[in-house]
Amino acid sequence: MASSDVTLLGAPLSPFTNRVQMVLNLKSVHYEFLEESFPFLIKSELLLKSNPVHKKVPVLIHGGKPVNESLVIVQYIIDVWTGGPGNLPLDPYDRAMARFWAAYLDAEWWPLLRGLHNAEGKEAEATALGKFMEGIMLLEDAFAKCGKGKDYFGGDTIGYLDVILGGFLGWLRATEKMTNLKILNASKTPGLFGWAHRFGSNAAVKDVIPETEKVVELAKTFAAIARAQ
Amino acid sequence: MASSDVTLLGAPLSPFTNRVQMVLNLKSVHYEFLEESFPFLIKSELLLKSNPVHKKVPVLIHGGKPVNESLVIVQYIIDVWTGGPGNLPLDPYDRAMARFWAAYLDAEWWPLLRGLHNAEGKEAEATALGKFMEGIMLLEDAFAKCGKGKDYFGGDTIGYLDVILGGFLGWLRATEKMTNLKILNASKTPGLFGWAHRFGSNAAVKDVIPETEKVVELAKTFAAIARAQ
Repeated sequence: MASSDVTLLGAPLSPFTNRVQMVLNLKSVHYEFLEESFPFLIKSELLLKSNPVHKKVPVLIHGGKPVNESLVIVQYIIDVWTGGPGNLPLDPYDRAMARFWAAYLDAEWWPLLRGLHNAEGKEAEATALGKFMEGIMLLEDAFAKCGKGKDYFGGDTIGYLDVILGGFLGWLRATEKMTNLKILNASKTPGLFGWAHRFGSNAAVKDVIPETEKVVELAKTFAAIARAQ
Repeated sequence: MASSDVTLLGAPLSPFTNRVQMVLNLKSVHYEFLEESFPFLIKSELLLKSNPVHKKVPVLIHGGKPVNESLVIVQYIIDVWTGGPGNLPLDPYDRAMARFWAAYLDAEWWPLLRGLHNAEGKEAEATALGKFMEGIMLLEDAFAKCGKGKDYFGGDTIGYLDVILGGFLGWLRATEKMTNLKILNASKTPGLFGWAHRFGSNAAVKDVIPETEKVVELAKTFAAIARAQ
């Protein structure tokens, strides 16, 4: 697979960074990883210059030109390195479904996960957990529809939506630890349960998933900041 | 241009509906328009069934299958009806830039515009206007970079980002009316000023742009609701 002059500015505990690392690895694109601090107390000059609008990781720099926003970056990568896994489905309707759920994950589901971490008190926790689990059940249904009974959202092989959701695996494991719940399990979410095992054990992916304990620690820090605001 | 069995559930004053109408018209796709009430006091059974996750317009139904979320819908349309204007650039980096600015418009710029409408008091209005104008200047810069000195964000012809921003033209005109400012003008934003005139007078587009007075009225209703919350 061709690759040249690729740098990723990212943070190893950021799910948005993780999805970019995963798709680069899946496509065997060699890249230099420049670690930014997280949650961004100090930002590098290169980050500020490369992403002046959002000043956030991840940033992909390819041939000296920066690309920002993780969904845009993943799409750029599959546009440039067209072979290999991680691609969108060929059928326009299936592509639209994959894009719809990717947008849902970032705009709706991630805030629900953060809301669960940030909830204070038994009642608020129960409400947040209920909403989060509704989101999980939507994704279980999406897995059945997008994957059509096969191993991945992309069908027989890992596709775009696998990568987009897969970036959250570290945070999902941390959430299971923090809530002491098996959020994904064989009885209620058999599709996602099997998927998480298969995707998470892929050789190109598994070392990208951050250690659960480190994510738990960061999630607690985020929650403390959110509660203090 | 081939077209068959296309229905759009939308609201004529919704900028997210407008962009879908525009790209369908630009590609000469015939469609039935089913008007939903806006801002959604009553939702049709078809809307609730077709967009169970967000319960929002626009929804495109093609061959009986619903597609939701305006950015996903526009992408679906250009994936299905590949000819004609409204497409993404061919170069992967140019595509990424168009996608980046489309995401910026929805996630950042539209809330800035709404924030300007909702601001109460001279100080809050000045702050909101300052932030909104920063966004406008980013778009002026984006026009120069994406359009490369030509007539449209898409270069010589109307492209994807023209449609995404173009959907907001009715709300932009309403904002000029409400603030009594020429937000787009020949001295500070010569690129966008010329673009808005060219794009807004396109035969496929101009009748989609809602009447300014109607948008002003709706914007005032929205602002009253936001202030009451």
